[in-house]
Amino acid sequence: MLKVAVVGASGYTGVELIRLLIGHPEVEITCVTSRQHEGLPISRAFPSLTGFCELVCESLDVDAIAAKSELVFTALPHKSAMDVIPGFLAAGCKVVDLSADYRLKDQAVYEHWYQEHSSPELLAEAIYGLPELFRSEIAGARLIANPGCYPTSVALGLAPLLKYDLVDPSTLVIDSKSGTSGAGRGAKQGSLYCEVNEGFKAYGVASHRHTPEIEQTLTVLSGSPVLVNFTPHLLPINRGILSTMYATLRGEENTAELIGLYQSFYGKEKFVRVMPSGELPNVAYVRGTNFCDIGVVSDERTGRVIVVSVIDNLVKGAAGQAVQNMNLICGVKEQLGLGIVPLFP
Amino acid sequence: MLKVAVVGASGYTGVELIRLLIGHPEVEITCVTSRQHEGLPISRAFPSLTGFCELVCESLDVDAIAAKSELVFTALPHKSAMDVIPGFLAAGCKVVDLSADYRLKDQAVYEHWYQEHSSPELLAEAIYGLPELFRSEIAGARLIANPGCYPTSVALGLAPLLKYDLVDPSTLVIDSKSGTSGAGRGAKQGSLYCEVNEGFKAYGVASHRHTPEIEQTLTVLSGSPVLVNFTPHLLPINRGILSTMYATLRGEENTAELIGLYQSFYGKEKFVRVMPSGELPNVAYVRGTNFCDIGVVSDERTGRVIVVSVIDNLVKGAAGQAVQNMNLICGVKEQLGLGIVPLFP
Amino acid sequence: MLKVAVVGASGYTGVELIRLLIGHPEVEITCVTSRQHEGLPISRAFPSLTGFCELVCESLDVDAIAAKSELVFTALPHKSAMDVIPGFLAAGCKVVDLSADYRLKDQAVYEHWYQEHSSPELLAEAIYGLPELFRSEIAGARLIANPGCYPTSVALGLAPLLKYDLVDPSTLVIDSKSGTSGAGRGAKQGSLYCEVNEGFKAYGVASHRHTPEIEQTLTVLSGSPVLVNFTPHLLPINRGILSTMYATLRGEENTAELIGLYQSFYGKEKFVRVMPSGELPNVAYVRGTNFCDIGVVSDERTGRVIVVSVIDNLVKGAAGQAVQNMNLICGVKEQLGLGIVPLFP
Amino acid sequence: MLKVAVVGASGYTGVELIRLLIGHPEVEITCVTSRQHEGLPISRAFPSLTGFCELVCESLDVDAIAAKSELVFTALPHKSAMDVIPGFLAAGCKVVDLSADYRLKDQAVYEHWYQEHSSPELLAEAIYGLPELFRSEIAGARLIANPGCYPTSVALGLAPLLKYDLVDPSTLVIDSKSGTSGAGRGAKQGSLYCEVNEGFKAYGVASHRHTPEIEQTLTVLSGSPVLVNFTPHLLPINRGILSTMYATLRGEENTAELIGLYQSFYGKEKFVRVMPSGELPNVAYVRGTNFCDIGVVSDERTGRVIVVSVIDNLVKGAAGQAVQNMNLICGVKEQLGLGIVPLFP
Repeated sequence: MLKVAVVGASGYTGVELIRLLIGHPEVEITCVTSRQHEGLPISRAFPSLTGFCELVCESLDVDAIAAKSELVFTALPHKSAMDVIPGFLAAGCKVVDLSADYRLKDQAVYEHWYQEHSSPELLAEAIYGLPELFRSEIAGARLIANPGCYPTSVALGLAPLLKYDLVDPSTLVIDSKSGTSGAGRGAKQGSLYCEVNEGFKAYGVASHRHTPEIEQTLTVLSGSPVLVNFTPHLLPINRGILSTMYATLRGEENTAELIGLYQSFYGKEKFVRVMPSGELPNVAYVRGTNFCDIGVVSDERTGRVIVVSVIDNLVKGAAGQAVQNMNLICGVKEQLGLGIVPLFP
Repeated sequence: MLKVAVVGASGYTGVELIRLLIGHPEVEITCVTSRQHEGLPISRAFPSLTGFCELVCESLDVDAIAAKSELVFTALPHKSAMDVIPGFLAAGCKVVDLSADYRLKDQAVYEHWYQEHSSPELLAEAIYGLPELFRSEIAGARLIANPGCYPTSVALGLAPLLKYDLVDPSTLVIDSKSGTSGAGRGAKQGSLYCEVNEGFKAYGVASHRHTPEIEQTLTVLSGSPVLVNFTPHLLPINRGILSTMYATLRGEENTAELIGLYQSFYGKEKFVRVMPSGELPNVAYVRGTNFCDIGVVSDERTGRVIVVSVIDNLVKGAAGQAVQNMNLICGVKEQLGLGIVPLFP
Repeated sequence: MLKVAVVGASGYTGVELIRLLIGHPEVEITCVTSRQHEGLPISRAFPSLTGFCELVCESLDVDAIAAKSELVFTALPHKSAMDVIPGFLAAGCKVVDLSADYRLKDQAVYEHWYQEHSSPELLAEAIYGLPELFRSEIAGARLIANPGCYPTSVALGLAPLLKYDLVDPSTLVIDSKSGTSGAGRGAKQGSLYCEVNEGFKAYGVASHRHTPEIEQTLTVLSGSPVLVNFTPHLLPINRGILSTMYATLRGEENTAELIGLYQSFYGKEKFVRVMPSGELPNVAYVRGTNFCDIGVVSDERTGRVIVVSVIDNLVKGAAGQAVQNMNLICGVKEQLGLGIVPLFP
Repeated sequence: MLKVAVVGASGYTGVELIRLLIGHPEVEITCVTSRQHEGLPISRAFPSLTGFCELVCESLDVDAIAAKSELVFTALPHKSAMDVIPGFLAAGCKVVDLSADYRLKDQAVYEHWYQEHSSPELLAEAIYGLPELFRSEIAGARLIANPGCYPTSVALGLAPLLKYDLVDPSTLVIDSKSGTSGAGRGAKQGSLYCEVNEGFKAYGVASHRHTPEIEQTLTVLSGSPVLVNFTPHLLPINRGILSTMYATLRGEENTAELIGLYQSFYGKEKFVRVMPSGELPNVAYVRGTNFCDIGVVSDERTGRVIVVSVIDNLVKGAAGQAVQNMNLICGVKEQLGLGIVPLFP
């Protein structure tokens, strides 16, 4: 059994990690930490866990955690993550970091969008953990930068277009919509039920921090620098991201041809489902799972392709992908613990 | 592997049965039927199932189904169920019926609240499948009447009070609230999004068909005839039933004493979680699972006990309990396939 | 034009007061206060108000407010209200207080359920502002204790039964469900979107502070002491309260007879709509309005009457009733500014 | 008083028209029609209207309606509308048609996207009723083609950019999201609560019938042919459309400059609110009203402008705009009956 710790267990990503790890046949959770709930059972913070996990929340003591864990998931806010991760690595743990701290390869870009980086020497080593695109790099890593939720939905949706050079990257427009769990469990007025319910808004227009992460991945896929418009919106649902993406085709592929290319690109992938012609994905059909469902339409009137991708932001967009990365770097079968049937309705 | 069929697969109960059976290690689904989707893959009706179940929906041919199935789940409307179940039994199948057709022991009561019964000779044989209360009768059955959703939440919530004779049954008031999936997938104006969302109403006041089913079980538990007020309400959520129940205590037990009695009553049960003093259940914490969470409060001012029970109406209130019954009558470990961690949020 | 101030304008009750007062033909809002938004236009806190109200939020300076206002609405938390109301009265303002501070006539009861009272000498003078039941007392008042949201739905629903002595008050059970705006605009984890959405729970069982307020009114209506069970629940909707109430009839009135009694009791009231036989109210049908819709059913099997009442908790349960009280104590036509058609869907 | 009829009163647009007309000081509703509810009071179909409108639903008899009405709102499905509108006009009524039947000027385009047109001779006469853009043509009309909901949000959002020739129209991408009331009150599986709630999807990608209507208006505004990508999505809310629109700027205007241009373009308009820099609109802030709120951001990194516009699809996107048009063609003050404060939360 693989001994793992969940550091920062009292957020929505934390509870989702615990849910997935409980169902994982090769994992033992050895430790959960929470400043807010220190000394209380994690099932007090999340009564859903009653009977499944009665661990008591600990404080964030790197040595104590490292002593009983082979792998640590850090589900902390950015900045908090980079303050403790070097310690876990030094103590011999593998780390899957769900914060943004090691996702951007270029320290200057990180510091422009976030803040000063306290361990830039690790940026080169950290591997961006999007297995469908970078599986070979992931296998040997000891530090995984688990991708952001929006960037995951975008990268998987656009990868075939960019890898096959089917579109002009300068025409990319990305319009994304996320469920409210993406805003976290912190008590903020903007996340209150009555503020979100029956509402809908864009936010962070032309300024959201996931923009450089998206551009970094698209640049790798494309082979040349990509700048995009990325507009996130807040959806009145708990879980799910849907990204609608537009680009001008270089050629005249029709919908069936594009779907065929997507199917061949993702043919062997367990967690990507390319929709047949005439069908489009819905966040409701991936709820609670590690799937990314993708629909593709060619608009012959305008010469653009429209791609719609959906994920569960807490699973493929966070905890599920983190478990997938754990499996890869620990030599466990990649799908283990993730073979969940979506909950519908 | 146990070969099972899902008859009536295109409703919400049907898809939930399929979800649970896919995750069951000892089951093979051999057949799904749907009049509406005959000839189409069930994953067309429910894209969530893509990659998990590619069975094509068949018509309801009793002989063809029986030829390849040991056990049949009938997830049909009442009346339709009793038209085919005798055939399945005659062909040697075991049946777990999710309709109301065999729940009421008294033919006259059934016919008063529903319609003429076409196979009353089976009423005596059918076993009411509430394992926590009637496990010993269930084991040897070949026909299980799977309980209604509301009656399950009520019976589990009140059983200790009635078995221990703690309350005056004539004072019972039952106020229940159900998520909208309980109304089924049929296209009715009253189930439209805009009719339900941001709304809340009572319905079937003093006339809901689950009333006699509730009273039958409470009468068995109490040992003498019980009449109740049962008021269902429609909640703007997908899943979940919460029942708030009131009765006058015969004695003066306080909250801690009542919780203690509930804990001893349900001590060994895997699917009942009695909340500690000061905590109350929430439908959100049992989502997607077979749990019934129960909270109990004694009001010393009025001499009443208030019990709050929650279930997921599609799981413990339908498909999950059906799988639990299947396990029992097929000699499989009772919890198999049902060890699901709740999805929160 | 009547000059009025809204003290505590940045909560949901505050914005609702402003919405109603903007539409009131005889009112001019002279001042809004907010500690949180002091110095900012109220339309920054509530962009919905843009173009309707560009007042800048002031600090709570009693003299400054009193100098420009004839009537003050205090939409403050309890305790904060009683700290400033004596000053407004001393300065010659009329006050409609939306807190709980002057609702309970018995200081000891108030102090048992809340905290020490700082101006108990005003308790005798304050009038409980439920116009349909206490209109004659309200007319001459200078201090109105505006009723709580739950108590309003309950008192209007039960008044005919108690005034006509149709039920045994000791059998009263009150099961209420409120939309989330009732929890206010404060940033609390329990009010977050993901905590409330797709959830449902009871809270404050046998301990909610509206219990003594309900009992006080029912005692007045009944003429003898009444104790009740009152159980509130949190609904995943923005607005609306539905109370389901149960009591044992002294006689054998059927549904039609009870509805007839309700219609005669409320015959001339503009804001109470008694549903015809066979129909039940829905919170969706009173959205944004000052209505209380009431449905009544007699259950001849159990001898109980079931009453279902609905209001919009922010209107008839708070701001709308406050405006109705303002109209009464200022000699304006009672319905002025409140003739709003419900917003459906 | 202006005598008006609402033909097709039992849909969501119908009830919204009635709500607005009840509050209109210069209007008397003389007739409502509904095939589904013929012979029943409209308040049975919509209990929200109880006490406000007790008209009985009539059948659609053109002569009977015309005899008592000066103006007729036709809130019928397309095709049904054009079958009766010539009759109303012949009988001397003015008509505001909320269907799509007279919106497209080019009969061939209409017949390509819809079906054969039965009264093409009226296409030239019908005026596209978007007052902020075409007020002068509207004043004298007797047949108004009331704009579609999506096209209204798009045209108002893009008009300044196209009129001032600030963007390259060939780069326009329009990503729209609509509340579920836009799908109507018909009982369809796709509109059921459990299908929509906690879900989100795109639909009609590259094929939605509002595309030619959008292109027709943008072409008029631009002065040369415009083709766009328009992608609608289904939002789990009752009311509201938000359109996010992207185009490449010809110049280098920054956000403040663009907002300034929008403010000058819409300066005198009562129903358009241009957001200040740093703020973006939310559908929640226009609920129940005729407003279109618009936010504009210039992205200097990509050279694109992003415009976000929101409306209430049932008001500015249907019934409210229809009343605004009625006011204009009947010589009543344009804002009459539409001065509603948004309902928040």
